[in-house]
Amino acid sequence: MTHPDAAAIDPIAARALFRDGLVTPTAGWAPGWTQANLLTLPRADAYDFLLFAQRNPKSCPVLDVLDAGDVSGPLLGDGDIRTDVPLYRVYEYGEMVAETIDVTSWWRPDLVSFLIGCSFTFEAALLDAGVPVRHIEQGRNVPMYRTSRRCRPAGSLHGPEVVSMRPIPADLVATAVRVTSRYPAVHGVPVHIGDPEAIGIGDLSAPDFGDPVEIRPGEIPGFWACGVTPQAAVMESRPALAIGHAPGHMVITDARDSDYLVP
Amino acid sequence: MTHPDAAAIDPIAARALFRDGLVTPTAGWAPGWTQANLLTLPRADAYDFLLFAQRNPKSCPVLDVLDAGDVSGPLLGDGDIRTDVPLYRVYEYGEMVAETIDVTSWWRPDLVSFLIGCSFTFEAALLDAGVPVRHIEQGRNVPMYRTSRRCRPAGSLHGPEVVSMRPIPADLVATAVRVTSRYPAVHGVPVHIGDPEAIGIGDLSAPDFGDPVEIRPGEIPGFWACGVTPQAAVMESRPALAIGHAPGHMVITDARDSDYLVP
Repeated sequence: MTHPDAAAIDPIAARALFRDGLVTPTAGWAPGWTQANLLTLPRADAYDFLLFAQRNPKSCPVLDVLDAGDVSGPLLGDGDIRTDVPLYRVYEYGEMVAETIDVTSWWRPDLVSFLIGCSFTFEAALLDAGVPVRHIEQGRNVPMYRTSRRCRPAGSLHGPEVVSMRPIPADLVATAVRVTSRYPAVHGVPVHIGDPEAIGIGDLSAPDFGDPVEIRPGEIPGFWACGVTPQAAVMESRPALAIGHAPGHMVITDARDSDYLVP
Repeated sequence: MTHPDAAAIDPIAARALFRDGLVTPTAGWAPGWTQANLLTLPRADAYDFLLFAQRNPKSCPVLDVLDAGDVSGPLLGDGDIRTDVPLYRVYEYGEMVAETIDVTSWWRPDLVSFLIGCSFTFEAALLDAGVPVRHIEQGRNVPMYRTSRRCRPAGSLHGPEVVSMRPIPADLVATAVRVTSRYPAVHGVPVHIGDPEAIGIGDLSAPDFGDPVEIRPGEIPGFWACGVTPQAAVMESRPALAIGHAPGHMVITDARDSDYLVP
């Protein structure tokens, strides 16, 4: 179930709750405020990742980059990137070594944090347009899948595209495309609609990240590029250290969803 | 005057002409094909620039980055970034030391080339919508100006925003905004409309780069973020070596303008 205050909270209060230890997926939280994926890497790996993001902009739309060692930036006010995400995953050489609510003990002055757009940004717009968002209805984390599609590599970084999935009534698929096309900075239009096997997804009821959701008769699965893609690249490319959010447990920023709306 | 073949030529033939020594501004050339600004830097400076671009996306929308030492990439086919631009500028410690048609003698295996979106991309769409593009009408280079607005710095890089200017009939200003809003990857909407003094431009007839154009009664100057901004940052920040295109003398790529159209 979603937290009772989720829909009314502002980013500062949400970050404070998470800093104090609340662990929850953030879909439906602080509607209108932009949520972001997190990837933190040593400065030595930062160019490869920024280039990877530039080359895979649908999966990795960079909203902001904190300077090495910085724990906040323009999108986070007086927040602290080491504590203000509900749940983190820490990777060493591609293996997850911790899932934790606080990464202060891993912090180093050479760590660079990337804030990456999240498809939660366009979910309020989908709802406004009458397109149901099943994982919000069901109070679950969005289902995410590794695909057989490969990202364009950059330096030492390589990996598969990860997608999030939303079941869309067939008569609203065009509406879902039209609405999300106005958010190119936060994954934009679906990368694939229908036919999960064509992108290497064998079983929609067994997502690689997040929770399964109900798909009702007459609904078509829509797949959007997902900001967990950087973590899949970390798992495959095995940098010495990387810190990310736990999938679905996002950074809630001070940016407005409308900041990323075009035209 | 524009070259007689400009409007009919394809990117491969255009690059071949420039490789063979033709020097010309490229506005109006190969309509429908995407033109790009060039900035080439040593790998040691590449992260700072890629971050600068991420932080100043309206001025520096990165279309592609060639790996260190590479002279071509997906947007250039069998082209050669050292020879296929009509005119280059070479900077050492921020000072222009050469304006040349071939930078092969400056080439090094650690050089990284950035291709940056150019407002020429949306000019065909402006013309299609009935918005005049004066520098094309007059067969001149677009006028560009340093402004008093500052870019958000990144590492060692800092500098002013540079803008291009197009005079727009007052009753078409809204149309010009609407049309260019559909091209966020190539500078998008104007950063400023009217009142040049408010952004530190004292004399529209004396651009800092390119040529002045006629402004007719009832026309309002529209200012768009410009891909010469990176070179202004180079002049101010003084990296040991940098290579750019001569303003208005662009890289003609194999990408289609429509690739950058949203929604």
